This record gives sequence, structure tokens and C-alpha cells, in this order.
Amino acid sequence: MTKDKASDMPPLAVVAGGGVLPFEIARSVEAVGRQVIMIGLADEPSDVLETWPVHYRLKWGEVGRLFELLKQHRCQDVVFVGSVSKRPDFKSIRLDFGAVRLLPRILRILVGGDDQVLRGVLGIFEDRGHRIVSVPDIAPELIAQSGHMTRQRLSSDNQLDVERASAALGVLGDFDVGQAAVAVRGRIVAVEGAEGTDAMIDRVGALRTSGRINWPNGHGVLVKVSKPGQDIRVDLPTIGPNTVLVAEKAGLAGLAVQAGRVLIAERERTLQLADQAGLFLFGFEVAEAGDV
Amino acid sequence: MTKDKASDMPPLAVVAGGGVLPFEIARSVEAVGRQVIMIGLADEPSDVLETWPVHYRLKWGEVGRLFELLKQHRCQDVVFVGSVSKRPDFKSIRLDFGAVRLLPRILRILVGGDDQVLRGVLGIFEDRGHRIVSVPDIAPELIAQSGHMTRQRLSSDNQLDVERASAALGVLGDFDVGQAAVAVRGRIVAVEGAEGTDAMIDRVGALRTSGRINWPNGHGVLVKVSKPGQDIRVDLPTIGPNTVLVAEKAGLAGLAVQAGRVLIAERERTLQLADQAGLFLFGFEVAEAGDV
Repeated sequence: MTKDKASDMPPLAVVAGGGVLPFEIARSVEAVGRQVIMIGLADEPSDVLETWPVHYRLKWGEVGRLFELLKQHRCQDVVFVGSVSKRPDFKSIRLDFGAVRLLPRILRILVGGDDQVLRGVLGIFEDRGHRIVSVPDIAPELIAQSGHMTRQRLSSDNQLDVERASAALGVLGDFDVGQAAVAVRGRIVAVEGAEGTDAMIDRVGALRTSGRINWPNGHGVLVKVSKPGQDIRVDLPTIGPNTVLVAEKAGLAGLAVQAGRVLIAERERTLQLADQAGLFLFGFEVAEAGDV
Repeated sequence: MTKDKASDMPPLAVVAGGGVLPFEIARSVEAVGRQVIMIGLADEPSDVLETWPVHYRLKWGEVGRLFELLKQHRCQDVVFVGSVSKRPDFKSIRLDFGAVRLLPRILRILVGGDDQVLRGVLGIFEDRGHRIVSVPDIAPELIAQSGHMTRQRLSSDNQLDVERASAALGVLGDFDVGQAAVAVRGRIVAVEGAEGTDAMIDRVGALRTSGRINWPNGHGVLVKVSKPGQDIRVDLPTIGPNTVLVAEKAGLAGLAVQAGRVLIAERERTLQLADQAGLFLFGFEVAEAGDV
């Protein structure tokens, strides 16, 4: 039934940054019978883009072409996925006619804060009848669910670490910092900044190796959440195989992620690695005032 | 007048961990005419301890001896200063008679949380008529004052970074994390965890070098505070020459510290290095509910 309904829907446009995630999502959507148009950003994703049945590659500044492609394929829904590893060199950007027409609006947006930039960009799509959708909307099976996803279970001590770290991340919600933290036996030993989750976990491992912090095996939890009010259509917290590998190396007992709001990339491999390492992966619910 | 009054006071006992700070404080107190008894903890501070006129070195577990020394020198006031780089190996601790007598009480304290441990240890001293004093009490000139301490002034953009970072550190106050953070153009890029302030600043520098975050010169502020409710008699936030050196290397514009609650170690050298590097050092006031 879902399959029939999905196949009746106009194609989904995936605007794809780097990594395998855009393809994972695209396959997941096509599996329920809905066509996917893949639009690569600049050099992202690499050569794999060419393997997708319907694909295009945009250069920076080709805003007009993007809207043309969406129109041509009758795509109402658009999803943004994947990272952009190389920031554009502003001197090399060539604006197409569509971009030039939108320039006054884009400039007005850019003088605002980060939040305004996002809202402004989403507004441009919405005004043209498009809808930016989130990964949980279109591929909910890729999102962490509640409870254990691994054979290993979390202990009551681990549970306290989850509560402690998620509480700290909760109060940091108004600041553009802290999607993740590591807690060990009730103490928060690291909060994620601009370095990213994996680098933060590596740091905790180095602190343990150097003897700066000590803990017995079976302790230490990475906690990752979507910040209150975070727009997961444009910034969806993600873990994947490498997160498990660095957590294992750091000597953590497991990973706990906010259920419904954190994506598990390469889910099968991620869970397999966690099981092999004896780590738990647990999805927890966060009571959020004004949840989006 | 102050000098005469200080010389009438019974000697101050400095229980000294590592570094030059215990001596800096001791000299500062002796400069106003009050005698200082220096009691080194385990191997801290190094050989320099022997240069102090009246000094002792305790082994871990010599609690009874500590109280004997305080009694012998009629020390009412005790200050704890300096870091302990090597945690004791519990197997090698030999408890003296005083420690054994206090053991039931110490064990009762240890089963509590971190805060209870501190309160409990302070209680043991207070019950014997001692008073744990803070560095601001006895050597206020070593503490950051309000306003600029360097030739370089902070810009209004820097001021916003100070406000942003101190607000984030404020909400983290209930958690045992975050005495310091780095903000760049309104964005918090790092929060201090167990790694310490200098390592956090190094990390920000590495993120800039790698291109993960970018900012023009004249931006980037280290903000360091004493957490709300933090007992500065046992945990006084400190910056010093190395803080300035790593901040310069990371490309920060300056340092802002909470006035009255952050110690500036080797003040003269710290300010000189900041002036040489063109960094500002600014003391800011924090409105704190229930300030201690």
C-alpha cells in the first residue's frame, strides 16, 4: 500500500553533498517505489553520482539551473543531505541568471544571523512551491529508534551518564555548540565544539591514554542529540561506522543517541561494528518543550 | 597599617601542589609581613620547596602530621594552592595515626558526591579550628580586576564573544564541565572539558590551521570564568604565561576572565607576553545569583 502511494508521488530531489549518505537515502526512497533525482553539489559526491539513473551536477552559483531541474522533473519535495568538504572559493563562483535575480534577496538573508540564513534559504524554496523535507520524513528506518539497537545493554551507571550529558546538552541548546558530549561516571569530560563528534571522542581517548582521566572498563558514554529547535531538515545529527570505531578506540562503553532525531549512517555496518566491539547503541527519548 | 596588622596575624600555612604559584602567593603574603609555612604535597612542588625558610614535605596519608604541623606553628589559616600532577597510587599510601583516627569520617565523606567530598574535607579542618582561605582573601593583587589589563583593547565584536561564551558557561554551571570556552564572531567553537584550558585553545588553533573554522585577525576570544557556586578556596581558575602563548599561536584576539574570580599566575610576565603579542586581557563582571 505504502509502495503504491509512494510511486504516485512526484519524484524526490536529493541535493547531495559528500559521502554515501545521499545514496543510502535515495535507495531507501526508491525501495518504496518513489523516483529520486540526484543533484550533486560542486564536486560532491564523487564519481558515484554518475551511477544514479537520473543525476545532475551543479556548480556553485547555479541557482537558476537548480530550480529549472526541479521544475523539469516536477519535484515538489527536496531533501538536503551530505557534507560539503570544500567550501566554495567565492572568486570562482559564477552566478547564473536565476542566482542573479535572487541576489538582492540572498544578500538580505546573508546580513542576518545563522538562523535567518537558513530560514531565508528555505523561504526561497517555499515561495516556489517546494517543500524541504527531512530524512525522518522520507526514510524513517535510517533514524535511531528508542531502546537498544545492539546486543550489549547499557548499565544503570551508563544510564546516569546519558542523563547527565543530555541535560548539559539541553541547557546548551540556545548556543551554536554541543550536539554531543562524553560523560564518564557522572562527569562530563568533553563537549563537542567545531571539531566534530569523532574528533571529540578521539580527544577523550587521548586523555585516557595520557592518564589525565581514568575509568574502569564498562564506563564512558558518547551522547548525541539534536539541539532543541534545531532544524533537522538542514542539520541532522549523524553517527556511523567511524563513530563506533573511534568510540571503541577511546575505550567507551557505548553510544546513546536521541531517538527519532539522529541518523545512523550505514546502519547495518554500524550495528555490526558495535556488536563486534561489545559497545551498546541506545536510543533515548528527550522531553522537549516546543519540539519541532 | 596593613603591614602591621598582617605581622600580628599567626602564620599562614600554604599546602602546596606543583608549579610556581604557591611561592608567588607565599611571597605576596610575606610582603605584607605575615609569616608563611610551606607544606609540600608528596613530590610537589619540586626542589624549590627547600628554598622556603619554613617548609615541610608531606607524604600521602600523613594527615595526622599535617594537623601537628599546623598546631606547632599556630596556623589558623590554611590555603590550598597548585596542581597535583601525579595522583597517588592507593596501594603505596601509608596512613599515619591521625589519618587512621579520621578514617571513618573520611570514608563517610568519600561515599558522597564530589561536592560532599569538598565540604567534608573543609569540615575536618574547621572542626579543628582552622579556616581554609582563598587566594583572593590573602593575595587579592594576584586576581584579575575589572577592565583592561593590557594595552590592546577589546572591540565591540570581541565584547559580544565574551557575552556569548560567558552565557554558555553560565548555563553549564551546574555541570562539572566548562570553566572556559572560545567564541569567534558570535559562535562558540570550543568548550573546555577534562583536557584543560591550554589544550582547548590549542585545539581551536588546529581547527583554524586545518581550515575547519576560519576567522579574520582581530577575532576569537578565550573566556574563562569561575563556575557559579564553585568553591574558589579549593578550585580557583587560573591563567598564566602559557595561556597567552597558546592563545597567540591559535590566532585569538585576546583573553577575557571573570574579574575577582580568576588568578593570573606570573602576572607581570603574562601581561608582558600579551602586550608583545598584541592580545588583550580583559576582566569582566558576572552578575551571579547567589554568588559565594
